[in-house]
Amino acid sequence: MSPARPDVTDIADVVPGREVKAAVRRTTRPERARWLRAVADALDEARDELVAVAARETGLPTGRLYGEVARTTGQLRLFADVVLEGGYLEATIDHAVRDATQPRPDLRRWLVPVGTVAVYSASNFPFAFSVAGGDTASALAAGCPVVVKAHPGHGSTSRRTARIVTAALHDAGAPDGLFGLVEGFEAGISLIEHPDVDAGAFTGSVRGGRALADRAAGRTRPIPFYGELGSINPVVVTEAADDAHGAALAAGLASSFTLGVGQFCTKPGVVLVPTGSKLAAALPGLVEPGAMPMLTDTIAAAYVAGTRRLAGVEGVAEVLAPDGPGSPAVYSVGAERFAAAADVLTEEVFGPATVLVTYDGADELQAAVDALPGSLTATIHGTADDDLADLADQLSTRAGRVLFDGWPTGVAVTWAQHHGGPWPATNTQHTSVGATALRRFLRPVVYQDAPEHLLPPELRDDSTVPRRVDGALVARKQLGSLPAP
Amino acid sequence: MSPARPDVTDIADVVPGREVKAAVRRTTRPERARWLRAVADALDEARDELVAVAARETGLPTGRLYGEVARTTGQLRLFADVVLEGGYLEATIDHAVRDATQPRPDLRRWLVPVGTVAVYSASNFPFAFSVAGGDTASALAAGCPVVVKAHPGHGSTSRRTARIVTAALHDAGAPDGLFGLVEGFEAGISLIEHPDVDAGAFTGSVRGGRALADRAAGRTRPIPFYGELGSINPVVVTEAADDAHGAALAAGLASSFTLGVGQFCTKPGVVLVPTGSKLAAALPGLVEPGAMPMLTDTIAAAYVAGTRRLAGVEGVAEVLAPDGPGSPAVYSVGAERFAAAADVLTEEVFGPATVLVTYDGADELQAAVDALPGSLTATIHGTADDDLADLADQLSTRAGRVLFDGWPTGVAVTWAQHHGGPWPATNTQHTSVGATALRRFLRPVVYQDAPEHLLPPELRDDSTVPRRVDGALVARKQLGSLPAP
Repeated sequence: MSPARPDVTDIADVVPGREVKAAVRRTTRPERARWLRAVADALDEARDELVAVAARETGLPTGRLYGEVARTTGQLRLFADVVLEGGYLEATIDHAVRDATQPRPDLRRWLVPVGTVAVYSASNFPFAFSVAGGDTASALAAGCPVVVKAHPGHGSTSRRTARIVTAALHDAGAPDGLFGLVEGFEAGISLIEHPDVDAGAFTGSVRGGRALADRAAGRTRPIPFYGELGSINPVVVTEAADDAHGAALAAGLASSFTLGVGQFCTKPGVVLVPTGSKLAAALPGLVEPGAMPMLTDTIAAAYVAGTRRLAGVEGVAEVLAPDGPGSPAVYSVGAERFAAAADVLTEEVFGPATVLVTYDGADELQAAVDALPGSLTATIHGTADDDLADLADQLSTRAGRVLFDGWPTGVAVTWAQHHGGPWPATNTQHTSVGATALRRFLRPVVYQDAPEHLLPPELRDDSTVPRRVDGALVARKQLGSLPAP
Repeated sequence: MSPARPDVTDIADVVPGREVKAAVRRTTRPERARWLRAVADALDEARDELVAVAARETGLPTGRLYGEVARTTGQLRLFADVVLEGGYLEATIDHAVRDATQPRPDLRRWLVPVGTVAVYSASNFPFAFSVAGGDTASALAAGCPVVVKAHPGHGSTSRRTARIVTAALHDAGAPDGLFGLVEGFEAGISLIEHPDVDAGAFTGSVRGGRALADRAAGRTRPIPFYGELGSINPVVVTEAADDAHGAALAAGLASSFTLGVGQFCTKPGVVLVPTGSKLAAALPGLVEPGAMPMLTDTIAAAYVAGTRRLAGVEGVAEVLAPDGPGSPAVYSVGAERFAAAADVLTEEVFGPATVLVTYDGADELQAAVDALPGSLTATIHGTADDDLADLADQLSTRAGRVLFDGWPTGVAVTWAQHHGGPWPATNTQHTSVGATALRRFLRPVVYQDAPEHLLPPELRDDSTVPRRVDGALVARKQLGSLPAP
């Protein structure tokens, strides 16, 4: 790992070669769990220093940053649990059927690491989606070396974190060279094109992600690229819900779309409300006005341009005009106009801006729903009397997470979590948050008629990981002589 | 479904619209299992007629074609079992933790159909990788409408099969319009670019697959594309194995590389043997010489060109010269020359040609292994005295299936099977054969705090599918009052 700023030519020193890849993939699951916990412990220990550096660089409040470090280390420990449990390997054993009409060989399938992963850090999460964030944690858990491209918005935080990660991995006995950091725009491009890089993971803008995805797909040897890109996160408020508690919903929305100065990929950017809603009436008075510092100058400038773009669309009313960069903005537009101008109105504006789309009756609501692009999340606020089945079904085709009576900001890191959605939210059928994020960095291998000593322990007959044997799922080791659990 | 040859403008009539997609994704797992079994039964019933048509079109022997129909219907029935079992849904339930420092919502994840799948048929399997083949079966099983692009090499077989599939689906109560057939080169291109198509699956050449993959990735809304492309399927014979039974290995190789006139994606195209091997000495006498009809004129012409290309490489000896299209060819080259000219010598020649690579000692063997590209399979012939761990590990990075003491032709359709490998074998981390082929046509959705009646039955607390609950895998329904299984 080179802590200095490598230019393009330095990438050759950071991207691992064949020996390092082999050393990493040959490590055991308990070893990798130990690395992840060691990194988590080291980051927790250094949290005061890390938060101080990050606060200086990003302007984010220290309370939020302490929370993010905890989220990051909790995530590392979850992946340690996932690796130790072993279900992620999808171990599958089909014993031979030698005397059948069509004899069948012994087949044993599991998932193996895909190789070296290039991780592109996000601007808005200097810890949780950065150097030691979810992409790095899940790649290391999978058995893949990692090269992180630091985000320029928090270079010092990135370098400091990388030093801690490198030292912790070394002390935990991990192979040298399995983790590296590069910086700079050109280095990022060279990385996805490097012949020894085997997959990419990115969190950021649609434009940036698309450019990298195109390069990944255009290589002589194309590689998988997992982009978490832009998201508009629609919220639908039914007439009954607005009628029952529209003002409370307005308070919830005000908190959600301004949280973190709106700089979350899960910020609700479009809210469908009935005409004359209590929510729309209450919202302007509940939003704290005034500018807040944004993560970078580029983001601040893009926010100003984005809000101007929204305000300039025909039929859009400015309910709450922004007062400079980082200042909340609320717009309103009728459902028909929204549907007609959806290409502009559903383009993500990163920052505290949201658009209220007013619908008059079921047909207008349907027209607005039809105009929604793919998103990470979609939210329904309804009541027990609403028939929401059809709406929920429709939204499930347009989002990876469908929420009820909540707000999309906040992504719990758990076994079931899914953070992904149809294009342009992501370019993948996999998640970047939660236990199954490992699957991005794994590929299947099946062994046919392998001598038992050449099989990994997880695929032998005395395997202890969850596995499918001759078609039947076995949740844990069958302990013949012990009472069933 | 239009049984005539639609030109480009007809695609609009075949690609399903929103209503059909919704109707298909809302069907239940038992319904979809019933469709698959109905299609299997109808194909079995029509097998005499289907085999007769296919034999005329492809020149393949009827015995082989009857076997392929059986494989196809067995595959449809396996996917019915997979759908009914439900483990493929990856159902995951995390109950809420409301009173924690960081309260956690109720999260319930499963996999949902990705939408309409474009299936591109293969030349060499008029049934098993064609209209009602594995891609179609797994897409229907997943809950996706299917549009098949027929292979021009067996248009009548494709149309006949499509009529049977359409009628069987209709009689089984499947939504109208969920299955269609298109024909023609231009129709195939328009299909992958159609805005209502959501994924592609292809079996064929690297060039054809790459062209479609590039179009899928270059769309305004990129879609996943799963290509099963070219494969060289290396075989490594150790000195000890050659010494112990080189002549028997020669007989096995002769059968394998000429099976089906070598027109299998799993044909062994490169065989690493020790210098002066018994295998190489015995092989020429064991190969039945003479031309055999190939699947199409294009394939026959490409075979002649491919064998000429191999023969023209410096240092390559012609052990058995081909006698026209479809006639077996064996070449020999030293390991060092092979490594130097690997770009040409590892390009798939579709047909009964194979290259013996002779190595003198461990270093030359390593050089040859280092030059191998990604493949669907890699095979080791060794003895109990050989230390094969390192070789097996290396080959597992270059192939999706690692075989011991067998031959790669023949792909059992089972739960554990994996038919995929690093580029250029495939462009995906998923399989096109075996139970997990469904995963290509699914995407995750998580429900947050959903009212129970809005959840699919598989995600409710009384779910009966295999699932992970609060981190622990539950292989089947917990039957509290019954004795544990």
